[in-house]
Amino acid sequence: MITEMALDLKVNGDRLLSWLVDLAKIGARDDGACCRLALTDEDRAGRDWVAQRMRELGLQVQIDAIGNMFGVRAGRDRTLAPVMTGSHIDTVRSGGAYDGNLGVLGGLEVVATLNETNLSTARDVVVAVFTNEEGARFAPDMMGSLVYVGGMTLDEALLTNAIDGAVLGEELQRIGYAGDMPLGWYQPHAFVELHIEQGPVLDMEGIRIGAVHNLQGISWQEVVVTGQSNHAGTTPMRLRRDAGYAACAIATFVRDLAKDMGGDQVATVGKIDLKPNLINVIASKALLTVDLRNTDEALLKQAERLFSAFLAQLREEEGVDIQTRPLARFEPVQFDLTLAKRIEDNAKALGLSYRPMTSGAGHDAQMLARICPSAMIFVPSVDGISHNPAEHTKADDLVAGTNVLLHTLWQLSNQEA
Amino acid sequence: MITEMALDLKVNGDRLLSWLVDLAKIGARDDGACCRLALTDEDRAGRDWVAQRMRELGLQVQIDAIGNMFGVRAGRDRTLAPVMTGSHIDTVRSGGAYDGNLGVLGGLEVVATLNETNLSTARDVVVAVFTNEEGARFAPDMMGSLVYVGGMTLDEALLTNAIDGAVLGEELQRIGYAGDMPLGWYQPHAFVELHIEQGPVLDMEGIRIGAVHNLQGISWQEVVVTGQSNHAGTTPMRLRRDAGYAACAIATFVRDLAKDMGGDQVATVGKIDLKPNLINVIASKALLTVDLRNTDEALLKQAERLFSAFLAQLREEEGVDIQTRPLARFEPVQFDLTLAKRIEDNAKALGLSYRPMTSGAGHDAQMLARICPSAMIFVPSVDGISHNPAEHTKADDLVAGTNVLLHTLWQLSNQEA
Repeated sequence: MITEMALDLKVNGDRLLSWLVDLAKIGARDDGACCRLALTDEDRAGRDWVAQRMRELGLQVQIDAIGNMFGVRAGRDRTLAPVMTGSHIDTVRSGGAYDGNLGVLGGLEVVATLNETNLSTARDVVVAVFTNEEGARFAPDMMGSLVYVGGMTLDEALLTNAIDGAVLGEELQRIGYAGDMPLGWYQPHAFVELHIEQGPVLDMEGIRIGAVHNLQGISWQEVVVTGQSNHAGTTPMRLRRDAGYAACAIATFVRDLAKDMGGDQVATVGKIDLKPNLINVIASKALLTVDLRNTDEALLKQAERLFSAFLAQLREEEGVDIQTRPLARFEPVQFDLTLAKRIEDNAKALGLSYRPMTSGAGHDAQMLARICPSAMIFVPSVDGISHNPAEHTKADDLVAGTNVLLHTLWQLSNQEA
Repeated sequence: MITEMALDLKVNGDRLLSWLVDLAKIGARDDGACCRLALTDEDRAGRDWVAQRMRELGLQVQIDAIGNMFGVRAGRDRTLAPVMTGSHIDTVRSGGAYDGNLGVLGGLEVVATLNETNLSTARDVVVAVFTNEEGARFAPDMMGSLVYVGGMTLDEALLTNAIDGAVLGEELQRIGYAGDMPLGWYQPHAFVELHIEQGPVLDMEGIRIGAVHNLQGISWQEVVVTGQSNHAGTTPMRLRRDAGYAACAIATFVRDLAKDMGGDQVATVGKIDLKPNLINVIASKALLTVDLRNTDEALLKQAERLFSAFLAQLREEEGVDIQTRPLARFEPVQFDLTLAKRIEDNAKALGLSYRPMTSGAGHDAQMLARICPSAMIFVPSVDGISHNPAEHTKADDLVAGTNVLLHTLWQLSNQEA
């Protein structure tokens, strides 16, 4: 076995790409989308296919009680904590070919490259496939990794109801992926997840590798405004209690808020429903959602406070009732900066443009960050599109990201401490 | 016959109210709404009932080619132009008991009062019922009066298709109201229409009579904004092309526009539809409507120009495409100020509070204003509600408005020139 890796060693891009194509066929729909909702027959078929690849690569395949899959490549010293990589293979209802899949198949491609070049590592290398990352069939999302790190009990997870009425534990049994490996068996030395960006930053800036330093905190609220329905022609402006106007004032306020706060703060009103929603009737009711995100918890709280103060003022000025209901609230996650810096260094050494960045979406790595040094490698999403059949990452970028993963995992798996 | 009216002569409020109740029973729905869409069986039943009342009052009933009904009380000098009053009895799908009906039944109550007190007038008094004022089944609205004054050809009107597919001319024949009186037969000396305000001004201010001086011009536009759908978490603010934000910026702009212009300018965005309308997706598309109204055509044009300039700026700033489509455009209508002043004088003489006002809704009187001095008497709408089963005007106000109509018609019908 060889214990030194040449800097110019590269993964086999053709094999990686053909695996991505093959996995995307499982659950493929006529419109080009991929639909492998968690714990459905399609998910089982995808899992079976991945397990078969793992076995062909000589990995030991293990399944834990929440259905997380682990392909283990033994290192020279089994007493050392393993290095873990991976992601998920479940998709949203109308998913693409790369979200999740790249992190799993990129990990397997790293293993295949190590095998072919006869390279041994000090530590075990583990490729993980986490259950139900998308949350499209069972809430919450990132469930497999959440349960793995102890953030949710197994019992609670197994009793979760699907949107189609199924019970998670029963579905897990049905598809044959209720395993016997204890939860949290591996306490990794480090975790690295390769993923598509799912945002437009790398693509717009023409940068090939994102070293993910942190992950945004999320604050989701539903807002219901109740005003007074009235005739749009006969009601003077001063007598209006316009729920539609109030909804729009909220949307423009949060835009201004994000611009004024600057930094990582983003704010979105993506959903607005007016009643009665007629051209010549002042709306009596508006239901809208507000999505605030920041990488800094204190700043996210500040955004929430400023938003709340604006609602109080708007209530007064427009004479409307405004009720809010929290829909989701996650604190920001800080990844391991030493590990993120290592990803940048490897991109640089491989001649790839790179930048530090923030993830705006949730990922399994944020759960693993609770128990070990973790970070992520992002590759560009063309036009920032994901969760959509049009999701695309250029082949060169898929391969480049996997090469960064190769060298990063190699270094981590040979660390003595 | 008596030719002098005492100032303290009043209409019979009980009779007026019972007529309003009886007419509202025709087309009544379980939810309390009244549904007599133009030229339906319910409209026919309402027309038959009104024609029967006219005949009982000794009026000559005439029907013209577009189905307008005229109940004629002969004056002493048939060579003089008649004084006309009236309104409509068709309703919207979920209508109230007073919109239109009050103008017709108030006119008949005036005739009944003249009859009972044996009062004769120099000129004929004509109570008109105009076809399809609401436009809820056949577009455009105010069709009967529009055709009457020559603003639309009879042929065009008869070929109009209903939202249910029926053809207007065939429906008119079917219900037996395709009459033989030539269009525009009566060239009135004056036209006065009694109507509920359909807005909150009189009710909020506690004023009982509105003397309508003018009617707003209307500019309706549909606006379609096309941006770029993207992830609400991963898309930095500076890279967004947010159709939802643009729609809301338009809505808050028109609110500011109306406030800045002041005067009679009103502006409403009552309808907004976002796509995909999801909490965590920046909207790719927004369809909204903009309703601008002013009593002054030059100011209304100014509002349209400022709006258009804002869209150009927004296109640039947000990087979105914005298309507009005119849905309706009517110039403001000026009523006869001498006649409006007469209405105010009569309200004052009857001890009723009054104010000059603007109509924000369209009415048959605006069509009649093209061929003769015209004005309107408004009575309060509780909370400004109309086109709704909750439409309500206090009994005292219904009667007070009819008393103003009585004295106004009396004076006009005895004018020598």
